[in-house]
Amino acid sequence: MAATTRSYGRSAAQMRPVTIEPGFVRTADGSALVSIGETRVICTASIADEVPRWLRGSGRGWVTGEYAMLPASTGERKERDSRRGRPDGRSVEIQRLIGRALRVVVDLEALGERAVWVDCDVLQADGGTRCASITGAYVALALALSDLVQAGGLPALPLTGAVAALSVGVVDGEPLCDLDYSEDSRAEVDANVVMTGDGGLVEVQATAERMPLSRASLDGLLTLAEAGIAELHAIQAEVVGG
Amino acid sequence: MAATTRSYGRSAAQMRPVTIEPGFVRTADGSALVSIGETRVICTASIADEVPRWLRGSGRGWVTGEYAMLPASTGERKERDSRRGRPDGRSVEIQRLIGRALRVVVDLEALGERAVWVDCDVLQADGGTRCASITGAYVALALALSDLVQAGGLPALPLTGAVAALSVGVVDGEPLCDLDYSEDSRAEVDANVVMTGDGGLVEVQATAERMPLSRASLDGLLTLAEAGIAELHAIQAEVVGG
Amino acid sequence: MAATTRSYGRSAAQMRPVTIEPGFVRTADGSALVSIGETRVICTASIADEVPRWLRGSGRGWVTGEYAMLPASTGERKERDSRRGRPDGRSVEIQRLIGRALRVVVDLEALGERAVWVDCDVLQADGGTRCASITGAYVALALALSDLVQAGGLPALPLTGAVAALSVGVVDGEPLCDLDYSEDSRAEVDANVVMTGDGGLVEVQATAERMPLSRASLDGLLTLAEAGIAELHAIQAEVVGG
Amino acid sequence: MAATTRSYGRSAAQMRPVTIEPGFVRTADGSALVSIGETRVICTASIADEVPRWLRGSGRGWVTGEYAMLPASTGERKERDSRRGRPDGRSVEIQRLIGRALRVVVDLEALGERAVWVDCDVLQADGGTRCASITGAYVALALALSDLVQAGGLPALPLTGAVAALSVGVVDGEPLCDLDYSEDSRAEVDANVVMTGDGGLVEVQATAERMPLSRASLDGLLTLAEAGIAELHAIQAEVVGG
Amino acid sequence: MAATTRSYGRSAAQMRPVTIEPGFVRTADGSALVSIGETRVICTASIADEVPRWLRGSGRGWVTGEYAMLPASTGERKERDSRRGRPDGRSVEIQRLIGRALRVVVDLEALGERAVWVDCDVLQADGGTRCASITGAYVALALALSDLVQAGGLPALPLTGAVAALSVGVVDGEPLCDLDYSEDSRAEVDANVVMTGDGGLVEVQATAERMPLSRASLDGLLTLAEAGIAELHAIQAEVVGG
Amino acid sequence: MAATTRSYGRSAAQMRPVTIEPGFVRTADGSALVSIGETRVICTASIADEVPRWLRGSGRGWVTGEYAMLPASTGERKERDSRRGRPDGRSVEIQRLIGRALRVVVDLEALGERAVWVDCDVLQADGGTRCASITGAYVALALALSDLVQAGGLPALPLTGAVAALSVGVVDGEPLCDLDYSEDSRAEVDANVVMTGDGGLVEVQATAERMPLSRASLDGLLTLAEAGIAELHAIQAEVVGG
Repeated sequence: MAATTRSYGRSAAQMRPVTIEPGFVRTADGSALVSIGETRVICTASIADEVPRWLRGSGRGWVTGEYAMLPASTGERKERDSRRGRPDGRSVEIQRLIGRALRVVVDLEALGERAVWVDCDVLQADGGTRCASITGAYVALALALSDLVQAGGLPALPLTGAVAALSVGVVDGEPLCDLDYSEDSRAEVDANVVMTGDGGLVEVQATAERMPLSRASLDGLLTLAEAGIAELHAIQAEVVGG
Repeated sequence: MAATTRSYGRSAAQMRPVTIEPGFVRTADGSALVSIGETRVICTASIADEVPRWLRGSGRGWVTGEYAMLPASTGERKERDSRRGRPDGRSVEIQRLIGRALRVVVDLEALGERAVWVDCDVLQADGGTRCASITGAYVALALALSDLVQAGGLPALPLTGAVAALSVGVVDGEPLCDLDYSEDSRAEVDANVVMTGDGGLVEVQATAERMPLSRASLDGLLTLAEAGIAELHAIQAEVVGG
Repeated sequence: MAATTRSYGRSAAQMRPVTIEPGFVRTADGSALVSIGETRVICTASIADEVPRWLRGSGRGWVTGEYAMLPASTGERKERDSRRGRPDGRSVEIQRLIGRALRVVVDLEALGERAVWVDCDVLQADGGTRCASITGAYVALALALSDLVQAGGLPALPLTGAVAALSVGVVDGEPLCDLDYSEDSRAEVDANVVMTGDGGLVEVQATAERMPLSRASLDGLLTLAEAGIAELHAIQAEVVGG
Repeated sequence: MAATTRSYGRSAAQMRPVTIEPGFVRTADGSALVSIGETRVICTASIADEVPRWLRGSGRGWVTGEYAMLPASTGERKERDSRRGRPDGRSVEIQRLIGRALRVVVDLEALGERAVWVDCDVLQADGGTRCASITGAYVALALALSDLVQAGGLPALPLTGAVAALSVGVVDGEPLCDLDYSEDSRAEVDANVVMTGDGGLVEVQATAERMPLSRASLDGLLTLAEAGIAELHAIQAEVVGG
Repeated sequence: MAATTRSYGRSAAQMRPVTIEPGFVRTADGSALVSIGETRVICTASIADEVPRWLRGSGRGWVTGEYAMLPASTGERKERDSRRGRPDGRSVEIQRLIGRALRVVVDLEALGERAVWVDCDVLQADGGTRCASITGAYVALALALSDLVQAGGLPALPLTGAVAALSVGVVDGEPLCDLDYSEDSRAEVDANVVMTGDGGLVEVQATAERMPLSRASLDGLLTLAEAGIAELHAIQAEVVGG
Repeated sequence: MAATTRSYGRSAAQMRPVTIEPGFVRTADGSALVSIGETRVICTASIADEVPRWLRGSGRGWVTGEYAMLPASTGERKERDSRRGRPDGRSVEIQRLIGRALRVVVDLEALGERAVWVDCDVLQADGGTRCASITGAYVALALALSDLVQAGGLPALPLTGAVAALSVGVVDGEPLCDLDYSEDSRAEVDANVVMTGDGGLVEVQATAERMPLSRASLDGLLTLAEAGIAELHAIQAEVVGG
């Protein structure tokens, strides 16, 4: 049993309050400010008419994710990657995950030879930033593509579904939904789960931080994630219409 | 005479609407979201107890500015500096300006051996981002130092005044206050003026983009800037108290 | 049903031939050349008496993984990371995985203030290089630590178990164990599973490449992985004694 | 009143001895060694038939400035930028200034699709290196273009005037012309002024290092600069003929 | 006279045991594992149909050498170049030497517009790695080109001869053939000699580490090298047929 | 027989006119501008009281060479290394050679815990820049150390002799002394020879560019070099006294 109370007085299976503010960056083709408790991420989508070199002439498009944390987003200031000369390892890992997650729901043939850059910039970090990024990135992407359709640039939305993500984990022996930073930093198991709107798994990254876990435990975590992600999809649908 | 109307139907001497939202980033020691028309910049101040190596043991502190544009802040997506491996030349120039401007109003002895990092991240760029950054950076800095005083970390605010900045220029032969992007990109002269709350010049950077200017013209631009910056100082004072 | 035959005439649940040659690099503290079919990885462990800065004085040690591919390890020559000036995103992701996997079975307190660098250099790549790396890295690590115990540097092996990894996936609708490159490149689902010697899950990274998967499918893949990894642990045990 | 005497026994309004030695680097298309007191800068201009990508097909040319200090040019050895992997912030700021200053007097249409690289390498630094660089860069540029005209590559010099620069400042309360290093390092105000041959302002960069300044003070500094720059233009004219 | 015995009980003029294992990396176009005593280097040749930009359209090909040490190849772990962001100076020097040595025996016209990348990765370093690299690189190159001829890609081998290299030096006043690490690190003179199969000098790099040497001494070292390289050529010929 | 006449109407065994101008950079501890025909190199020596980390506490000093070409030193402008982010391979090779050559004549124990940085910046390149650099670097170094002795910082010059270098080669079958660029670029053999003042060999780097050479030919080149270097030593001695 977890001795400590969770933030927002929530139960083990409850998420923090979630809001998605569409159109937060007016210069972007699509954008959203996603807030999951105190975690806040600015997500933007930018559509370019030029694909990476290896896709030229293929008739297919591409979606790339980028992820960065603003220096003041964590308690202690984090040095900018541009000072270090390269993204840090964790950021590289996360932006690859964002890109893969989005590409599963994009019909790249239907997108045509266009590249969509989806940028996730963390304003405040209190756990679960990579999952919040994916959830907000989908909204930014859907809004940008929707505008393109409206403007006559595409006959129909090149999306096969929605995608959202949630972090779940085991803390003090108890499975919890939507870990905040204080929970995440002492979790025995930490799992990031990405699912489509109709409940298919897109990516599961479960990591035993301190001790291995059983397949039954993993399955229990997926049950928790499934319920939470369904809520996220409902909020996404309100924003993008869907 | 300028044939075109200015945004917001304003006169040559008028600024765009200005708002400063304090506390925009709750993980930062001090923060502000500054909006000058469609230009919006997130400013944060982070106080660290460690100074750069060359100041260790000196009893004096330091203030560093950093500046970056979010990829979607301009119409066309701008590549991240961390991909290029280094900040671009323009960003380097701007962050040096921000640091110098702030240091003129900070009593570095009174600050003690502390470093303040002031980060300016452009959310939307529509001209005047470097000046908006300085204006917001001062607010973030003052709020962070004020909290430190409240918390007993310093006996008194180590500030000798306020600082704000405004861009002025000559467009189609006419001197204009607070250029937006469409004006800036066709300006004959572009000047960034930084002033203290009591009207002293901190930095003047006047650049003839297409043809040289006379000293009288420069003086006229400074008059325009002086009036606008006084308004900015009034808004800053409302936010930080002072 | 898979129309094509698998390499080595194996069934869906069978692995490719596995060999682990200990002591392959005599200048390393511990080493192994691991071969899984045509995939071959050189793994070395180097023990240093200096820990990363953030662990100094903590009494605890650290284990870091590094991963690189020799330029000629794939069909088409791959440019060296040192030419590009940084490791590519995929390598970063993999070396973080290797480090996490190994640290789960190392008692970092018992290791004391020592850093172990485990390097995995891919000689030939035919699918499953990250899993082969983990399997071989454990052997290199165990051999290096074993020598240190023999030399009186440690009272007992600071290991809580063994660790090995296997890639499984769904190809043409059929779950397969130990994908080779031709299978991996057309897989619908690709999962890398890391397990301890006593069958606990250390890390699961399941990725739907083309279409989402169900929880039941994921569970089926874990069953396949469990059996294969048990075989790998048996081979590891022969080599390191254990 | 300044208690200390100035170098070369000069008055507040006097410059240090100035010499410009044309043709100092015979492998360059145009070159000059400019000496302002103990400050010495090697300036070269190299004309290439290829413009930056964004100008191809435009019929217009470009002028780029680069600035670097030889390691031994200051008292204490300065590490090379190539060791650090990038130019330092100050160099970036200066080379952007040099490029802007030169482009104001070049008719880029008349230049045609050519790029001129103007390199300023500081041999000895005793204050005012950026201004000396601009003054010498103009000479190198004019000589290179003049040769190109002579060789029949251009029908006429694509220059609309000359450009030179001078640093002025306030030291111990007194406005001084052409600060040397010992004056510069204790100046309250430091201004770099760039002017054309016929007295137009090209760029003013005035920085209050310790305390703000008044508009009247700034105007006084511009008067000092105007007189000094007139002398520099006379020396330039002797060298390039003009 | 050298007081200490040499490894393998050999005389001053004798080399360590040499083996060359062809085809060590099956994914490469040509490969060899060369062992000179405890020094072991993996050499691979990769043929690409694209030449460097400056050779396009010339009808001529190119051969490039690359050299790196695996982190555990020396006693103490060596940081990867990709971490440092660039190859270290010694590696740069060595890979330029490898490229030059190979190009002397390749008929670049006959090769046609192809680039051959020859990679030398040191598995174990016990002195003489650059010479072992050249000796093995030639084998990898010859095998790759031979396969290309067999496959009908070229009418005849574009090689004008073989090339091999050996390190010789003066230790404790005595000229020695094939220095191992313990000898190399205390040598007064260290010379790397590259020769063709018919005894012509390709490159001589003689370095006086502690005291200058006479021309007679240098000549004596070349005599030692000549004999040793003849042996290396015999071993190469066995492997590549020739 | 060489059909073409050599520059300055000189014979095969003659060098180009040589001048060494001491004290060329007054901010350096020691300096020289060396000219060999149209090749001109600025050499400076800077003495620091801090040695590289691996020498701290050893009581011994170090000498490091750095080499760079000014962008306009060759006919076509050469991009700065700081733009590329790293020194090019050729520069790395040359600066390592300069450092080694100087260290052979410095008594590093007698130097004490000091680092001497010797910078060679090529002003004009017309062949033989690395040899001219060594010849000038010695002068800069000797002048700096001599001043240090005069100032009481050292009891005696920590030099065991002088060092100079010359390039020789075979062009159109004829051995030539001191190749200029036009000769160097078509040489069959190119050798850089470094010798001490009393005629000992410090470094020989002979490279067969197009066809191997015989030991007799190499010996002939060394004879040419020996005579030329003796002249260089005489000129050095005039400048540094000695």
